[in-house]
Amino acid sequence: MNRGNCRKEEDWLAYLDNSATTETDPAVISVMADVMKKIYGNPSSLHGIGVKAERLMEQARKVVADALSCLPHEIVFTSGGTEANNMVIRGVAEAYHHRGNHMITSPIEHPSVYHVFQYLKQKGWKITELPVDSSGRVNPADVETALTDETVLVSVMHVNNEVGTIQPVEEIGNRLKKYPKVMFHVDAVQSFGKIPLHPSRSHIDFLTISGHKLHGPKGIGCLYKRKNLTLPSLLLGGGQERGLRSGTENLPAIAGLAKAVLLAKEAEETFYQKYQTWKEMILTRIENELTGVKINGDIDDGGAPYILNLSFPGLKSEVIVHALEKEQVYVSSKSACSSKKEEPSRVLKAMGLTDQEALGSIRISMGRMNVEEDIKQCCDVLVRTIPALQKVMKVHKR
Amino acid sequence: MNRGNCRKEEDWLAYLDNSATTETDPAVISVMADVMKKIYGNPSSLHGIGVKAERLMEQARKVVADALSCLPHEIVFTSGGTEANNMVIRGVAEAYHHRGNHMITSPIEHPSVYHVFQYLKQKGWKITELPVDSSGRVNPADVETALTDETVLVSVMHVNNEVGTIQPVEEIGNRLKKYPKVMFHVDAVQSFGKIPLHPSRSHIDFLTISGHKLHGPKGIGCLYKRKNLTLPSLLLGGGQERGLRSGTENLPAIAGLAKAVLLAKEAEETFYQKYQTWKEMILTRIENELTGVKINGDIDDGGAPYILNLSFPGLKSEVIVHALEKEQVYVSSKSACSSKKEEPSRVLKAMGLTDQEALGSIRISMGRMNVEEDIKQCCDVLVRTIPALQKVMKVHKR
Ligand SMILES: Cc1ncc(COP(=O)(O)O)c(C=O)c1O
Ligand SMILES: Cc1ncc(COP(=O)(O)O)c(C=O)c1O
Repeated sequence: MNRGNCRKEEDWLAYLDNSATTETDPAVISVMADVMKKIYGNPSSLHGIGVKAERLMEQARKVVADALSCLPHEIVFTSGGTEANNMVIRGVAEAYHHRGNHMITSPIEHPSVYHVFQYLKQKGWKITELPVDSSGRVNPADVETALTDETVLVSVMHVNNEVGTIQPVEEIGNRLKKYPKVMFHVDAVQSFGKIPLHPSRSHIDFLTISGHKLHGPKGIGCLYKRKNLTLPSLLLGGGQERGLRSGTENLPAIAGLAKAVLLAKEAEETFYQKYQTWKEMILTRIENELTGVKINGDIDDGGAPYILNLSFPGLKSEVIVHALEKEQVYVSSKSACSSKKEEPSRVLKAMGLTDQEALGSIRISMGRMNVEEDIKQCCDVLVRTIPALQKVMKVHKR
Repeated sequence: MNRGNCRKEEDWLAYLDNSATTETDPAVISVMADVMKKIYGNPSSLHGIGVKAERLMEQARKVVADALSCLPHEIVFTSGGTEANNMVIRGVAEAYHHRGNHMITSPIEHPSVYHVFQYLKQKGWKITELPVDSSGRVNPADVETALTDETVLVSVMHVNNEVGTIQPVEEIGNRLKKYPKVMFHVDAVQSFGKIPLHPSRSHIDFLTISGHKLHGPKGIGCLYKRKNLTLPSLLLGGGQERGLRSGTENLPAIAGLAKAVLLAKEAEETFYQKYQTWKEMILTRIENELTGVKINGDIDDGGAPYILNLSFPGLKSEVIVHALEKEQVYVSSKSACSSKKEEPSRVLKAMGLTDQEALGSIRISMGRMNVEEDIKQCCDVLVRTIPALQKVMKVHKR
């Protein structure tokens, strides 16, 4: 951790790939190390060492539940966002098949949602992919229109991981209230701890969280599951997590997640402000000092301020990423997990971008360890590097 | 960590529940903290911070592969033993259904194997549960006899978690060599790092490992999958782990697991000796100083020396566990994950124990942090406590 306020000149770098993963907060690391040293028991063990572990786990569960204004037993700890997403969609498919064989989603979901729907399609499920507008937004009215008697699940993410679009999940939830047989899942991995969302108030039945996107541990996440809803377990075994998720509980990570949630909560407002200022700072400099750039996603009426997606048609994402990296600025081409694939981003294509625009896009994503200096450095490097690359690639200036 | 060599008088305790979970080795904790601080990137990211993370991950994979004498790409990291077991059995069911609908297992498998088979049974699969003898051992000849044209998988664990029985998995594997269409899975969670087993030499196709049973991190494990075998992913998404296990990689835990594997390897021989001596020490004292005790599992020709299961018919496991705990000796009633259920252990019942014998059983399980003093204390407390309990419960002395 050579970053944030404690940076030293020689190893300074601007890590702006926080949507891929964040640096673990030092306070989280120390909680985890402490738990590993002192509370090593198995929460399922009968004896005192087990009981101590179980108690800590329930305290952590309460912290997460409080952040979502829900009941502790509505929280199921998982190994991450991917597992929680799989668990919901596969689980609903298994448990509610008798009700119908139709689900609704958006075309810009994370692969851990998208690929589960692709899988269900092969198994004979009908999957409606709602259209999105040029900023990536779903129209809540379209959700209602797409409903059929066969619909069992709607799954729409809160904040998109590539472009930062905030979906109108509250409005979707409110519309779905009238259809008690339709369940609603929200992947909140990119918003939790940054943009408040209360599942019960918004008629959300399932909500996904991941620790490592909010300066918490990797390998931990959780699923909010509204009480009284049935969901089969994806991992069968010892029956941990009230039978919903078997496997010895990862207590150090669970405690670390709770710590990360508390830290995120404390910082929520100040950082939201900071991100907005920083995003505007980048946009202003780009608009003033660069040509041949397209801003993707919702910038006017409030995409997430910590994610900014830019296209430089004619340039290649990978080339830009590596050029910036040489100047100690770390951003990404599309999402981390698909960054090594050659195709244009599925998300950007759904938003109507051309292949050229999609193949020349980068994502700048901020986190709580960033300082203003990182943003300035990023801007300086962008306005210096991009024109040079455009010159080499003979990109036509507009 | 008030234990092992660094114990202090006032907080001394004998943790003898290492089959439930182990204390994380301090060296593992420090590796994990270090990785969290310094190598926080997403291994899938294109830039240097991601590349650094990916490199460390591949080094760790090599360490685990070396311990199994297999190829690095035969190792798939998972969130633990439960996930690996589910992945194999559900995955084989999905991918090889066209070959047949029959699987073979033992009645004393861990719940993360047992319950998956129960699930498949409901889905129409035929599952043969082989008989076990009074020490819990499967007869390799029975495996061959049970094979049909429809058999796609045999799953037999290496060391049983409740009684320590070592299954003849090498012999089973050798017999299965003649049946190339039958795959062989071994749950090696309780043996890995203590009793060498080389999957390729023993014709094992899938092998399960869990970090927290060998003084490694919780929430991490891995699956050995023989190369060229198809296995569908249980968690769909970003396509990590060569498409076999999606989800952002838990690098700190992966590095911690590799460290734990190295430490286990160093200590393997000395500790095997120690466990044997300690087990004999306990057995001698029990036989000389207690009545009304039955020793479960294989003690003559080599059950695992670090697990000892005893029955005190007429007493209740829970009562014994709590009585020992008052004297700072921590053992368990059956397996941790089922320790809160009231039924007699399924494993002990399969071995032919009466309900009374099964309901009065305790498990003493040793680990690398134990010292001889723990064992002595355990013996002292047992020979003092058990007769007192037997007196209260008016247990007939035999
Ligand atoms: C929107 C979204 N959902 C789900 C995930 C998956 O979470 P995890 O990495 O914890 O599996 C991610 C990140 O990878 C994400 O950005
Ligand atoms: C034999 C055996 N298999 C599998 C598991 C499950 O492993 P994990 O706790 O990592 O999910 C355990 C322990 O809980 C075990 O003892």
